[in-house]
Amino acid sequence: MLIRQLFDKNSCTFTYLIGSKDKNSIIIDPVLNNVDVYLTLINQLNLNLVYSLETHTHADHISGSGELRNILNCDSIVGNESGIECASKFIEDNEYLTIDDINIRVLYTPGHTNDSYCFLVDSIKPGALFTGDTLLIRGTGRTDFQSGDPSKLYDSITNKIFTLYDDIEIYPGHDYNGFSKSTIKEEKNHNPRLNLKSKKEFIDLMNNLDLPDPEMMDIAIPLNENCGLEK
Amino acid sequence: MLIRQLFDKNSCTFTYLIGSKDKNSIIIDPVLNNVDVYLTLINQLNLNLVYSLETHTHADHISGSGELRNILNCDSIVGNESGIECASKFIEDNEYLTIDDINIRVLYTPGHTNDSYCFLVDSIKPGALFTGDTLLIRGTGRTDFQSGDPSKLYDSITNKIFTLYDDIEIYPGHDYNGFSKSTIKEEKNHNPRLNLKSKKEFIDLMNNLDLPDPEMMDIAIPLNENCGLEK
Repeated sequence: MLIRQLFDKNSCTFTYLIGSKDKNSIIIDPVLNNVDVYLTLINQLNLNLVYSLETHTHADHISGSGELRNILNCDSIVGNESGIECASKFIEDNEYLTIDDINIRVLYTPGHTNDSYCFLVDSIKPGALFTGDTLLIRGTGRTDFQSGDPSKLYDSITNKIFTLYDDIEIYPGHDYNGFSKSTIKEEKNHNPRLNLKSKKEFIDLMNNLDLPDPEMMDIAIPLNENCGLEK
Repeated sequence: MLIRQLFDKNSCTFTYLIGSKDKNSIIIDPVLNNVDVYLTLINQLNLNLVYSLETHTHADHISGSGELRNILNCDSIVGNESGIECASKFIEDNEYLTIDDINIRVLYTPGHTNDSYCFLVDSIKPGALFTGDTLLIRGTGRTDFQSGDPSKLYDSITNKIFTLYDDIEIYPGHDYNGFSKSTIKEEKNHNPRLNLKSKKEFIDLMNNLDLPDPEMMDIAIPLNENCGLEK
């Protein structure tokens, strides 16, 4: 199985291309501006793109899912809660997506947004968890828009992610500090928003981050509600 | 074995931290500005840093090797050809560096500079090749300063790197396009500077790139000749 981590410098977004031994593939969180890069790589690796999968409705970049679906005829997949009617397929908690030797367990992890999911590839050792903006390396996604909810985020991370096997590798949806991956154990022990913090302390911290809105928010969310395509 | 890829946004440099099962570790191409990040990560992962290894004398960032050696008492290691007298240890072609289950074959690959080396970790499957600026993803290092030589670079890549096992993963010293890793096979087939090109065509291409000097060159090279430390 192949996992490629691709970085969008403008939004510090990680996109992931996962290829099976039989050359079928899944892309997670593609960025519209980089679709040409993905198409070239998919072609060079001789892959067939089956699914374009979103961890949530993004506010900081425009999704490439609709464009990839138009060009490669893949399915675009979003969470049940997203309300993105144009998607090809909807997923829910504890569902499995399976392509060849790629087995993905779908975990509903609301908190950053109400439509946030994590994807656990449990068919490789030690397992790879694609966490979107739910859990970042030594950080978390914010909870101050798009139905964000720090109480739900705390529960998603502590009750769903941190109960998984310690050695599972974490592949986040963003990184702003030069990191590329982590593990469940590392984040349990060293994530400053979570380790040793009570739920109340986490909620207080998240409610007082006082962050500016993402620059692209007003453009990105409406477009992403249409699979990243102009209406 | 643990491999962590760390990205320096200012110079688009990749630094690598490789940890053994017995918690000893090697860092490749550390960047001075990020030493605090490395120290924190090394501490959090409960690692002992044994070697700080340079793929070559860098012109685009200041090395963190001297600083890491001062703080953690590791050995700083450079190629025989570098002339970096302050280094703790010098390496040459086909030497092995071994720590616990990490076995590194040292490959002398001149061309980008006359002191350029690649490091092949051959104790994991399918093997990991740390290529510095010799071979980048769909590109190569430049050859227009620091005793750069496109003829030598062509020979290093085609006769040394491309004769290795196809599935070996390539971890480059830089990436400017959002890629994180590649394989020998991919670069053989899809590197536009090399695939289908004769040695003469490659040399002509490299001699006509007409690139500006790296911004930090006049500061970085003299400092790196002193292990990244002020004299």
